[in-house]
Amino acid sequence: MLIDAGKAPPGDMYRILLGSVLPRPIAWVSTTSNSGVDNLAPFSFFNAVSAKPPLLAFAPALHAVAEPESTKGVEKDTLRNIKENGEFVINIVSYDLRTQMNASSANFSKEVSEFDQTGLTRAPSSMIKPPRVAECKISFECRLYKLLEFGEEPSSGNLVIGSVLCVHLDDFVYQDGYIDTSKLDPIARMEGNWYCSARDRFKMERPS
Amino acid sequence: MLIDAGKAPPGDMYRILLGSVLPRPIAWVSTTSNSGVDNLAPFSFFNAVSAKPPLLAFAPALHAVAEPESTKGVEKDTLRNIKENGEFVINIVSYDLRTQMNASSANFSKEVSEFDQTGLTRAPSSMIKPPRVAECKISFECRLYKLLEFGEEPSSGNLVIGSVLCVHLDDFVYQDGYIDTSKLDPIARMEGNWYCSARDRFKMERPS
Repeated sequence: MLIDAGKAPPGDMYRILLGSVLPRPIAWVSTTSNSGVDNLAPFSFFNAVSAKPPLLAFAPALHAVAEPESTKGVEKDTLRNIKENGEFVINIVSYDLRTQMNASSANFSKEVSEFDQTGLTRAPSSMIKPPRVAECKISFECRLYKLLEFGEEPSSGNLVIGSVLCVHLDDFVYQDGYIDTSKLDPIARMEGNWYCSARDRFKMERPS
Repeated sequence: MLIDAGKAPPGDMYRILLGSVLPRPIAWVSTTSNSGVDNLAPFSFFNAVSAKPPLLAFAPALHAVAEPESTKGVEKDTLRNIKENGEFVINIVSYDLRTQMNASSANFSKEVSEFDQTGLTRAPSSMIKPPRVAECKISFECRLYKLLEFGEEPSSGNLVIGSVLCVHLDDFVYQDGYIDTSKLDPIARMEGNWYCSARDRFKMERPS
């Protein structure tokens, strides 16, 4: 079957992208509004972009096309906070934090902190104001490098690219310069309400 | 442990990013040089960026910092071809194509087509010149939307953002508007020479 992207409804394209580009790593992003509320939310249109300079990117405005009518076109708290002060932490989600991660994706009002709602612990960051998630084994402190905005409507699509300022690594997962990803035990996003672990692994030697 | 990104060697940052942001989906990208050679190569700094407009993005220049000395700073064939004509196909890698995908990551010279080296079949695209991989169950025909270049040296970091023109979907995986991701059976990139499947799944209802 051939689907013309110029003619397909956006909802169809959204489902096709979500069902094709996967499993997707999860950025669990903490930000702080200028009024002092700490936000925390997961995003799976996320990946590393460059090691030199070290850059991470995620797209926070995606669910404008898939969410209930009331939130259509409304900027997410994460994006609004980053526009206010340019600072955010990308925390990595291990399997044992899956329930709290999912709980943080609820639509709380902007005066409410997901840290308080989920019982997670704020740990101070070193170079920026937003706290990191103390329970996470890896956290990247980031400063906004570039914000791209796509489409004609406000926030129909965005990409936040962040410069990595520093990385917090739990000694449990980081030894001798390498991350033990079995101990990190990350989870990833699939389609719908599905997730997957990275436990079903295999190795292939790269050809020379 | 706290690692300052401004002081850490790029190789350390590269390993930390590869070991933290995972599992990563794989873009198996086919391009055609203006001299007519069809290239095919996998990239895992890849994700969807936006559904409206439909955009995919991948970073083709990453291994400039991690590869053998001879290829440092040399533009990859994929990026060179996209700069030449702006056209590419992102093919999705199912588990049964893992060996061919891995074989296509070898450093062939630019006159050699990975299609011929791996025994994969070219299928014609509908709206652009580069062929898609006939064996893949999903392929996105794309046109360059924006190329970002980072850092001071040539190709120390890049991000190719592509507009999705159309999508080829095998009826085996696409029915009634949904992709059956169990049938798609995608693989993803882990650290080093490791990969994972998406077979170890679990479901969490999203909170309201």
